[in-house]
This record gives sequence, structure tokens and C-alpha cells, in this order.
Amino acid sequence: MDQHTPVTVIGLGSMGRALAEAYIKAGHPTTVWNRTAGKVPALRDNEAADVSTAVKASPLVIACLTTYEATKSALEPADLAGRTLVTLNSGAPAGAREMAEWAAGRGAEYLDGAVKNVPAAVGDPGTLLYYSGSRAVYDQYFPVLRVLGGDTVYLGAEPDLAALYEYAVGGTLLPALLGFFQGAAVVTARGLPAASMVRFTAKWLEMIASVLPDMADEIDSGRYGDPASAVGLFEAGIAHDASVAAEFGVDTSWQEGMHEILRRAVAAGYRDDSVSSLIEMIRRPQVSI
Amino acid sequence: MDQHTPVTVIGLGSMGRALAEAYIKAGHPTTVWNRTAGKVPALRDNEAADVSTAVKASPLVIACLTTYEATKSALEPADLAGRTLVTLNSGAPAGAREMAEWAAGRGAEYLDGAVKNVPAAVGDPGTLLYYSGSRAVYDQYFPVLRVLGGDTVYLGAEPDLAALYEYAVGGTLLPALLGFFQGAAVVTARGLPAASMVRFTAKWLEMIASVLPDMADEIDSGRYGDPASAVGLFEAGIAHDASVAAEFGVDTSWQEGMHEILRRAVAAGYRDDSVSSLIEMIRRPQVSI
Ligand SMILES: NC(=O)c1ccc[n+]([C@@H]2O[C@H](COP(=O)([O-])OP(=O)(O)OC[C@H]3O[C@@H](n4cnc5c(N)ncnc54)[C@H](OP(=O)(O)O)[C@@H]3O)[C@@H](O)[C@H]2O)c1
Ligand SMILES: NC(=O)c1ccc[n+]([C@@H]2O[C@H](COP(=O)([O-])OP(=O)(O)OC[C@H]3O[C@@H](n4cnc5c(N)ncnc54)[C@H](OP(=O)(O)O)[C@@H]3O)[C@@H](O)[C@H]2O)c1
Repeated sequence: MDQHTPVTVIGLGSMGRALAEAYIKAGHPTTVWNRTAGKVPALRDNEAADVSTAVKASPLVIACLTTYEATKSALEPADLAGRTLVTLNSGAPAGAREMAEWAAGRGAEYLDGAVKNVPAAVGDPGTLLYYSGSRAVYDQYFPVLRVLGGDTVYLGAEPDLAALYEYAVGGTLLPALLGFFQGAAVVTARGLPAASMVRFTAKWLEMIASVLPDMADEIDSGRYGDPASAVGLFEAGIAHDASVAAEFGVDTSWQEGMHEILRRAVAAGYRDDSVSSLIEMIRRPQVSI
Repeated sequence: MDQHTPVTVIGLGSMGRALAEAYIKAGHPTTVWNRTAGKVPALRDNEAADVSTAVKASPLVIACLTTYEATKSALEPADLAGRTLVTLNSGAPAGAREMAEWAAGRGAEYLDGAVKNVPAAVGDPGTLLYYSGSRAVYDQYFPVLRVLGGDTVYLGAEPDLAALYEYAVGGTLLPALLGFFQGAAVVTARGLPAASMVRFTAKWLEMIASVLPDMADEIDSGRYGDPASAVGLFEAGIAHDASVAAEFGVDTSWQEGMHEILRRAVAAGYRDDSVSSLIEMIRRPQVSI
């Protein structure tokens, strides 16, 4: 497999068009298809008339639609026998398992993957994508997959692992953005630009990344007793949040659930334990693993 | 001001002891005081018998207690006239303003600051601290303050600016950690270690940092109409969160407030706008700026 391997990209949303452009740039014969035809004028020459023709054009078919359901419905008319299907949408692990069965039922090899970055970063040496499913397929197509990002990782044979990590790793995005917007609401209420926070927040996110290895070790060992940051310090911050909210007239009600977790952790005796012990409030103890 | 400037550090909690150790390492004559005497055996030789003696020992007094209230109560017995007081605790902007008045009333110069990192990073070239208050005092003591971190920044003369940014920038920490713990609850429920997420999450946080400049521009211009990530994409993820929660038996109720913001934004017509438009749900429109 090299740059002569033909590739078909199904779906020309923000992410799909970035994938197609990366393959064209890398010299792969590239065929595209999108439900709404002609959506990306620059890709007209690569566009197949229908999805069956698009799938027939390449041994490797990469689909990037909104969901697994959309992917199945879009691919329904095509003959996938003997093709390798790679999906790069977000979705629940259960959806990935169903997708794998669906692909197997149609005689296709299957890998599920996730692009852990924005479309503009597709093709960059540092861009992370991970995959799960058949190791043989991953190895066979590795040079072709790697065109999409230099940090291409295989997670394991179970087809839902990529979706599992996509969910687990992606889960910091909305909370972190809301934290940033909350801060920006306060800074802009003071007449200062949100842009003045950016450099500081970027550094703060680096700090957060730097504490994750210790937090993960605490979680994996179940030892929360030697904290760098204790639950109590965060719990004490609740009153402080309320006073800032009142002073700047911002609505912090979206944080109520986080405050509730802190209060429950303190009530459960975790005050002097590491903040990583909050995971015990998220795990449901009655569920056996 | 150079390394011969004597420095007094008040408070030997996790952060205070890191500050004191940085000054000792840099060769400054260093005096310390802590409410609970003898708390840090390695600093016994530097410990003053009482807070008045500690304050008398140095022109520059750096306090790092839990709150502004604790700082005022601890410094009450000391004569601060002619001293420069720097506080490095977290707290609300209103607390910083009161602290500034309190210091002025006692004849002290005052700077408020914040350490934007963990104690172990104190003294490192990349470590960020920012300050607000008297520019003259900041300039006079800059070489001494810089001992605590190479990225030392002056925010402005209003004494509460450091507390304002401390709040605004620090606000991503708890949400981002909870997002990580939520992911770790799912990954560990599958029998995989939380440690397996760390490298991916660190990279994901870099991705988040990379989108902040555009988000801030959208916020500062009020133009949300050309989104890299739209509100609708996040809103569609709510159902997906619920299915993962059900499959892995985790309690995602702490996210309810975030989902509510997404639903309110969609109802308010922001579905196709940038996710940065969520700030409009946090700002209270009835408040004039
Ligand atoms: N954009 C990002 O920053 C980013 C980053 C990482 C991961 N992802 C993931 O990548 C996937 C695609 O995201 P995107 O940003 O490219 O989305 P998008 O811009 O909204 O594009 C959605 C694509 O899905 C197609 N589609 C939806 N339902 C369909 C159906 N029933 N049949 C056929 N086609 C259908 C759309 O076709 P039409 O043009 O005909 O509507 C369009 O091509 C999502 O799962 C997303 O979570 C995105
Ligand atoms: N640790 C971090 O990672 C970190 C990072 C950035 C910012 N900060 C901020 O730095 C400040 C200190 O944090 P820390 O982690 O060092 O806290 P800590 O380890 O809990 O230490 C608290 C310190 O405050 C003293 N104290 C509390 N109430 C007092 C009172 N009424 N009178 C006299 N002393 C009192 C304690 O004295 P005793 O020993 O007598 O109890 C102790 O020295 C906080 O505002 C925190 O938000 C901390």
C-alpha cells in the first residue's frame, strides 16, 4: 500500500473534505461522494455520480458522516464485498459494534477510527487519529491511514475501542470550553477582551495536562490519600464562584452539577483526598465491572 | 533589588513552602512564618517566632494562605508600615479590592498576584504568575518576583485584576478534570487503565488550546456565524452521552447543566452558530456592562 492506493471518501462535511484534500495532496487517486452533490466545488472532478460507483472505485472506503446511522443509510445501495471500510465519525461504542456487524454482514473488512483534532490539522505530523478493529487491515493500510495524521495509533481488535476512547478523551471539550466562556463572560463584563485570556488559558491547559499522569495513577491504584489538590480546596471555591457570579452578573447555573459532586464527595469523607477521588461519585457503585 | 533582597514568606501550605524554597535556592535571605509552627522541618532555621518578627525581617512580604480573610487575620498583629505586601492566594476580585484597602490603611504597598501552576513548578522558566496593583512596586521588585517563575506578567494598576484573571483563567480546571474523570470511569469500567487515556487527553487539551484564539475573536466581535464547531453538533452529542452513560453505568448528572445550556442555545436560535455563542447563555442580558 502506497500513494498509488486509490481511496474513496464518503461525506464532504467539514471533516470529510479535509480528509479528501489530504489524499489528493498526497497523490492518491481519490474518489468522493456526498449526499448533497457538488457541495465542494474544488472536489467536483473527484466526485462519483452515485455511492455505488464511489465504493467501486477504491479498495479503501473512508466514511466521515455525522453518525453510524447516517453512514449505514448512505452506504446501503453500495456493494461493499471485498472492500475495506473505515469510519471516522463520532458515536457511542454500541454504535461502533453494530457498524462492525453491519460491515461484516456485507462482506467488508472494517476499522473504526477517530480524528482527535480539527479539520485544519488533518495531515499534520502531530495530528492524532486512533483506530480499532482488525490488526491485519490496520497494518495493511497503515501508510495510507497515516496520510491523515502523523500520530496514528492502533488501540486493539475490539471494534468499539476507538469509539470508547473518542468518548472518554473527547469528554473534556465541552466542559473546558464552557469554563473558558464563563471566564470570558466575566472578563468582557469588565470591559476587557476575551482575547486577553487566551495565552493564559493555553498555559493553564498545559498545567492541567501536566497533572493527569498523577491523577490517572491515583485512579488506577485507588489511592487518593496523598493529594496535590484536595477535594476540600475545590469545595471551598464554590462560595467564591458564587460571589464572582453575583458581582459580574453571570449565570453560573451550568456549574451546579459540578458543585453537587464536590458536596457529595465531602459528605462521603473525601475532603482531604485528591480531587481525582471525584471519580467515585461518577462511578455507580452498584454496577459490577 | 537583587538576590540580596530579604524576603518573608507567610504561610507554609503546599504553595507557600514552594515559594520559600525557591527564595532560599536563589540565595535570598528568607524568613518564614506559619500559623502552625514547625510545620516544615526543612524550614525551621528560617522560621520567625511570631508574625511581627517575620514581617520586620524583610521589606517584601509574600503571603500565601488559603484566603484573603485568613491573610488579614494572620497579619493583624504585625506592623506593615513601609513594607510591600504581595498576596498569592486565590479569591474573588472583591476580596482583592478589600485587601488592597486594608494594606493601604496599614501603610503598606500592595500587589496582588496569582501562581498559575502547581507548587512543583514554582521557579521554573515557563511558570506563569501575574500581578496587579502598583506598577512602581512591580517594577521595583520584578527581579525578586521573577524568582518564582520565568513568565511573570503585570496586568494593570487595578488591584483586583489578578484575582479577576485568576478566576477567569482558572475556571477550566474543575470542568476539564471532571471531563477526564468521566472518561476514566468509562475506560476503567471496561477494564482498561485510566493511564491509557493520558497521552491522548494531553494532546486533546492542546487541540482545545489551539481553537481558543478563534473562539475569543468570535466572542470579542460578537460574530458567531462562521463556525468551526457549531452548537448543534454538541447538542446532538447529548443523546450519545446518555447512551454511553447507560452502557457503562456511570452517573453523568453533573453534565445536566451543560446540556441545559446547549438546549437553551438551540431554542434561542444558535444551532448553526459557533459553540462560542454559548457565552450568551452565561451572560445575563438584563445586566448592563
Ligand atoms: N468538524 C470537526 O471539528 C470534527 C472533529 C473531530 C471529529 N468530527 C466528527 O466527524 C464527523 C463528521 O463531522 P463534520 O464536522 O464533517 O460534520 P458536518 O460538517 O456537519 O458534515 C456532515 C456530513 O454528513 C453527511 N450526512 C449526514 N447525514 C447523512 C445521511 N443520512 N446520509 C448521507 N449523508 C449524511 C452530510 O451530508 P450533506 O452535505 O448532504 O448534508 C455531510 O457530508 C462527526 O461524527 C464529527 O463528530 C468532526
Ligand atoms: N496548591 C496548589 O496547587 C495551588 C496552586 C495555585 C494557587 N494556589 C492557591 O494558593 C493558596 C494556598 O494554597 P495551598 O495549597 O498552599 O493551601 P494549603 O496547603 O491548604 O495551606 C494553607 C495555608 O494557609 C494557612 N492558613 C489558613 N487559614 C489561616 C488563618 N486563619 N491564619 C493563619 N494561617 C492560615 C495554613 O496554616 P496552617 O498550616 O496553620 O493550617 C497554611 O499555611 C490558596 O489560595 C490556593 O488556591 C494553590
